[in-house]
Amino acid sequence: MNKIKIGIIGAGRIGRVHANALTNSIPQAEVVAISDTFVQSAEKAAADFGIPEFFADYHEILNDPTIDAVLVCSPTNTHAQITIEAANAGKHIFCEKPVDLTIERILEAKTAAEKAGVKLQIGFNRRFDHNFNRIHRLAKDGKLGDLQILRITSRDPEPPSAEYAKNSGGMFLDMTIHDFDMAYFLADSEVEEVFAATAVTVDPAIGAAGDIDTAVVTLRFKNGAIGVIDNCRKAAYGYDQRVEYFGTKGAAIAENDRETNVTVADADAVRSDKPLYFFLERYMQSFREELCQFIDAILNDKPVPVNIEDGLRPIRIALAAKKSALENRPVRLSEIN
Amino acid sequence: MNKIKIGIIGAGRIGRVHANALTNSIPQAEVVAISDTFVQSAEKAAADFGIPEFFADYHEILNDPTIDAVLVCSPTNTHAQITIEAANAGKHIFCEKPVDLTIERILEAKTAAEKAGVKLQIGFNRRFDHNFNRIHRLAKDGKLGDLQILRITSRDPEPPSAEYAKNSGGMFLDMTIHDFDMAYFLADSEVEEVFAATAVTVDPAIGAAGDIDTAVVTLRFKNGAIGVIDNCRKAAYGYDQRVEYFGTKGAAIAENDRETNVTVADADAVRSDKPLYFFLERYMQSFREELCQFIDAILNDKPVPVNIEDGLRPIRIALAAKKSALENRPVRLSEIN
Amino acid sequence: MNKIKIGIIGAGRIGRVHANALTNSIPQAEVVAISDTFVQSAEKAAADFGIPEFFADYHEILNDPTIDAVLVCSPTNTHAQITIEAANAGKHIFCEKPVDLTIERILEAKTAAEKAGVKLQIGFNRRFDHNFNRIHRLAKDGKLGDLQILRITSRDPEPPSAEYAKNSGGMFLDMTIHDFDMAYFLADSEVEEVFAATAVTVDPAIGAAGDIDTAVVTLRFKNGAIGVIDNCRKAAYGYDQRVEYFGTKGAAIAENDRETNVTVADADAVRSDKPLYFFLERYMQSFREELCQFIDAILNDKPVPVNIEDGLRPIRIALAAKKSALENRPVRLSEIN
Amino acid sequence: MNKIKIGIIGAGRIGRVHANALTNSIPQAEVVAISDTFVQSAEKAAADFGIPEFFADYHEILNDPTIDAVLVCSPTNTHAQITIEAANAGKHIFCEKPVDLTIERILEAKTAAEKAGVKLQIGFNRRFDHNFNRIHRLAKDGKLGDLQILRITSRDPEPPSAEYAKNSGGMFLDMTIHDFDMAYFLADSEVEEVFAATAVTVDPAIGAAGDIDTAVVTLRFKNGAIGVIDNCRKAAYGYDQRVEYFGTKGAAIAENDRETNVTVADADAVRSDKPLYFFLERYMQSFREELCQFIDAILNDKPVPVNIEDGLRPIRIALAAKKSALENRPVRLSEIN
Repeated sequence: MNKIKIGIIGAGRIGRVHANALTNSIPQAEVVAISDTFVQSAEKAAADFGIPEFFADYHEILNDPTIDAVLVCSPTNTHAQITIEAANAGKHIFCEKPVDLTIERILEAKTAAEKAGVKLQIGFNRRFDHNFNRIHRLAKDGKLGDLQILRITSRDPEPPSAEYAKNSGGMFLDMTIHDFDMAYFLADSEVEEVFAATAVTVDPAIGAAGDIDTAVVTLRFKNGAIGVIDNCRKAAYGYDQRVEYFGTKGAAIAENDRETNVTVADADAVRSDKPLYFFLERYMQSFREELCQFIDAILNDKPVPVNIEDGLRPIRIALAAKKSALENRPVRLSEIN
Repeated sequence: MNKIKIGIIGAGRIGRVHANALTNSIPQAEVVAISDTFVQSAEKAAADFGIPEFFADYHEILNDPTIDAVLVCSPTNTHAQITIEAANAGKHIFCEKPVDLTIERILEAKTAAEKAGVKLQIGFNRRFDHNFNRIHRLAKDGKLGDLQILRITSRDPEPPSAEYAKNSGGMFLDMTIHDFDMAYFLADSEVEEVFAATAVTVDPAIGAAGDIDTAVVTLRFKNGAIGVIDNCRKAAYGYDQRVEYFGTKGAAIAENDRETNVTVADADAVRSDKPLYFFLERYMQSFREELCQFIDAILNDKPVPVNIEDGLRPIRIALAAKKSALENRPVRLSEIN
Repeated sequence: MNKIKIGIIGAGRIGRVHANALTNSIPQAEVVAISDTFVQSAEKAAADFGIPEFFADYHEILNDPTIDAVLVCSPTNTHAQITIEAANAGKHIFCEKPVDLTIERILEAKTAAEKAGVKLQIGFNRRFDHNFNRIHRLAKDGKLGDLQILRITSRDPEPPSAEYAKNSGGMFLDMTIHDFDMAYFLADSEVEEVFAATAVTVDPAIGAAGDIDTAVVTLRFKNGAIGVIDNCRKAAYGYDQRVEYFGTKGAAIAENDRETNVTVADADAVRSDKPLYFFLERYMQSFREELCQFIDAILNDKPVPVNIEDGLRPIRIALAAKKSALENRPVRLSEIN
Repeated sequence: MNKIKIGIIGAGRIGRVHANALTNSIPQAEVVAISDTFVQSAEKAAADFGIPEFFADYHEILNDPTIDAVLVCSPTNTHAQITIEAANAGKHIFCEKPVDLTIERILEAKTAAEKAGVKLQIGFNRRFDHNFNRIHRLAKDGKLGDLQILRITSRDPEPPSAEYAKNSGGMFLDMTIHDFDMAYFLADSEVEEVFAATAVTVDPAIGAAGDIDTAVVTLRFKNGAIGVIDNCRKAAYGYDQRVEYFGTKGAAIAENDRETNVTVADADAVRSDKPLYFFLERYMQSFREELCQFIDAILNDKPVPVNIEDGLRPIRIALAAKKSALENRPVRLSEIN
């Protein structure tokens, strides 16, 4: 078997998640190098996952002609630049979301990848989650009829710092972006209009930094259905990731995953586990699966399952949501260029 | 024990529900007369529930000086008129919701009751439902912290006829009105702004009649929380009545009630019961409880648990929702007089 | 409509439950008298439920020729005697379980009722419970295939006093008797052999009084299936009443009923309600339903749904279980005369 | 890091499960050889998991001085022999359950391992299952109080062939043995007496082969609690693996694991997933965890988590259960030598 040779750019949390998945669960791939501007992180990841080489400068990876593909796991503001360089270097690219916070740069990355003829997959891993994927298939198979209302609940266990919030592009671009992708993925229809009601209910410092931490976003899909996303930066009980597809033939509801299926009944109550703590626990299986399909797309020259259009779409919805919140009115996607 | 003597005006479905509850479960009350313009209905109810007298004309009830209180269960467009006449006749009044579809008439009814010094309770029975009442108490007791997001799902098992829809004042006044009341009851805060996204996904004839059958309504509460109601005139699986109170200390979720707690596992799936069929099945206990408290308010001269202000508020929200849907913009309650 | 005139003998807890059900929910019946050796109880029940007459001596009821039927709700050791006298007086009889703790007396009651040609129904109310009745129908309709294993869990929220335990005939005759009836009802097959493993895990005083408070009882049914009942006089979390019918086509599981369907998620756990507190809360609907069917059997001269054979069977199984526990061996029902 | 060098003896289903876990998830171990009398199986496993060497004869593994430990995954009737030889060769041993169907041979294996001073762990993987392990910890931590009743439900999705059943030592030694281990593990108390009620409800051919396919086994623990295991070789709905620990402070119930947490509500019912199909799906995580702890015991010279006593105990209980079923009486463990 010819293994795909992979370089990972960025040895932070998500870079390590991917290194682990590739090393341990995907025999068709081989991680041959990892880089991080903070080189100790690259060194540690190399040791932990048995990666032969590590670098401070990602160009060493791009310049290595034996490397087939790169994973862009660096900070968001470098995604587009590295993607473009990697495309120019002829590497297949798996880029973490978001590719960029501006439409222009995403389109530049798109152009670069198309010109180079390389695969470019975006890291919207939740599409590969066992629960949401099941709903997707039920919908595709017509088991649920036509979509009427799509509900997405997405709440984090802990808020980011106000400092982080300030530099993140705002909650819609940083957090809801996953939900905007999920909305399209499950509705199988473009969003035409967005209305966002927002609040600061978790941390006033986030509000002071010009961001919000709570929102209810209404979406109008082209197919006539209505979507609604509710977000919060902090839920007392942990990471809340639910979806409800309400269709003319039936409804499918994805409940949260828990660590065990044990319930304890005592004199106080009947207790069950809280949801799995955060995205690393909840979505571990989906991180592995998205890479499997990326490797498969390269090996068998198939379209990637999440392409650059999929990377662009939620950015546009997020920008519309921001505008809606700012102007307190429904905003059509056609207003966002 | 001195029993409260009751006359029921209207012997349709809800009139019979109340007659049954009063006759069988509320020993402090005695139904002494029932009327219906379709007198055979009154006669049948009288026979079924052992009510001594029945009439075609409700004035016979109003003119009977031995009667302490009346239940107004006639068609909606007669509620205000009968309420006013009953107040003038010195009867305590339990009036089914809505009192009227216009604010003016509701205010007239209010004035009449105040002038007459009679009790006037509105039939928002869902406040007394075991599930929603539990959430209300949890919130009141501070167990859930400050409200962040309130979600109400309310879907019917079968749509009304387009003919009915046309004369109902529209879905917001006919169906969502219960949810608007629930939103206030649980949030314990006034609604300041409404945005309604609507669709016709069930029956095009309802759309042709100028109404809608599907909606997602976003509410901004005075206390800073956000509410969202999703409605549909038809759910394939039946009557869906859920609530989620998401607060800073925790979330409380009311799931649907079912006929049994039996699950059946076979070669296909693990199956449990669908929700109880419709409001008569689901809310039977709450219909009884609201009357118990009405009788108690009369007997012990206490404030009624759902007063005319509570009857007025959801009408205003519904009118704002209609306006929002029509103009596709958020509408402030202050715009509705 | 000709109402069945009823006298209730015994104004304790269960007598009041039946009085309430008959008065409020069963229009075809009319409670005309109630008696209790502690006459204040009878007087209070008469006042509470609007029963015209009350007595200390139940013979006043038996001697009243206008009374059609009696409910025997007196202490267990008087059931057989009163049943025989009532039969001789030509009354239809609803007798609380158990008819007696000895087979001989039950057979005497049977003979008396047969000779008099009166209906005699035994109060195994749980057959009418919505959950268990659903499983019964699923089984009857062949949805579950042939029974393989039947599991019954039956645990009380609080143990009786040791004094009570001593005079109750023991846990098998006092508590498990309901489960023995349920086993037959659901398996639709006679029990041929019993093995009882017992323990004292709740209250040593119960053990000192010669009784047990914990048991696992294995049943062999004539149809080849195996049954298992687990009992405890106290569960920390309350009244636990579950059943599992495991058949060749599928399994049906009845979970406990709860007061609400609200779950609360907070920083500690996800909590739901404990089971309904005890039999008065859990089985209220079944107490009403068994009387409805009793009245119907009289009115329409139909067989009663739970007859004297049904009253005898669980006594025999309970006696076999006692013998099994004493001798630590499986005991065949044929050993019990 | 010094990796533990492992040889796997037996390249069947469970050998491959372990090879996969070691290769992909346990970096402290390295599988250097695999053997199978059917050498093509060894060859294929070597290729699939990147194992450098494969053999037909396991002695090649035992004779390799660089190998630290072996996994005995061969047919049951060779376990004891290979374990003894491996001990004599100075290898640490992980032996699949059961070590043997006779007590004598298990004791010989025990003696050999003790004499050689090697680690010997038995493959009772279910102790490492997330659900059962949670209950174990709750019990250990005193959260559930003293055990009163322990219930284990263990049902397979498909029965073995009658041919297999005939050579398996019978259902108690082949299937229930896991449940006997679980009973001890959770009760933390020795079993003193066993009563087994058995039936053939799945396949008459299994009965004709002298085995049974359905059982309810009652256990008396030394601590006074009662245990009950119900088994069936086939459940229509799949692999049913539940446990209930009922203690004086509370009850903990482990429900089945499912592939997703999606429920689908339609016009027929509310459906959720069936349990995970069989032990490979359900217990994958526990197979990995038991090996992690085996490697850890070797690396850090700690006691193995499941020792040879743990391997012996369930065999004795199984033999008592067989005797109980044969003689239809409770059998004390002291009768089994």
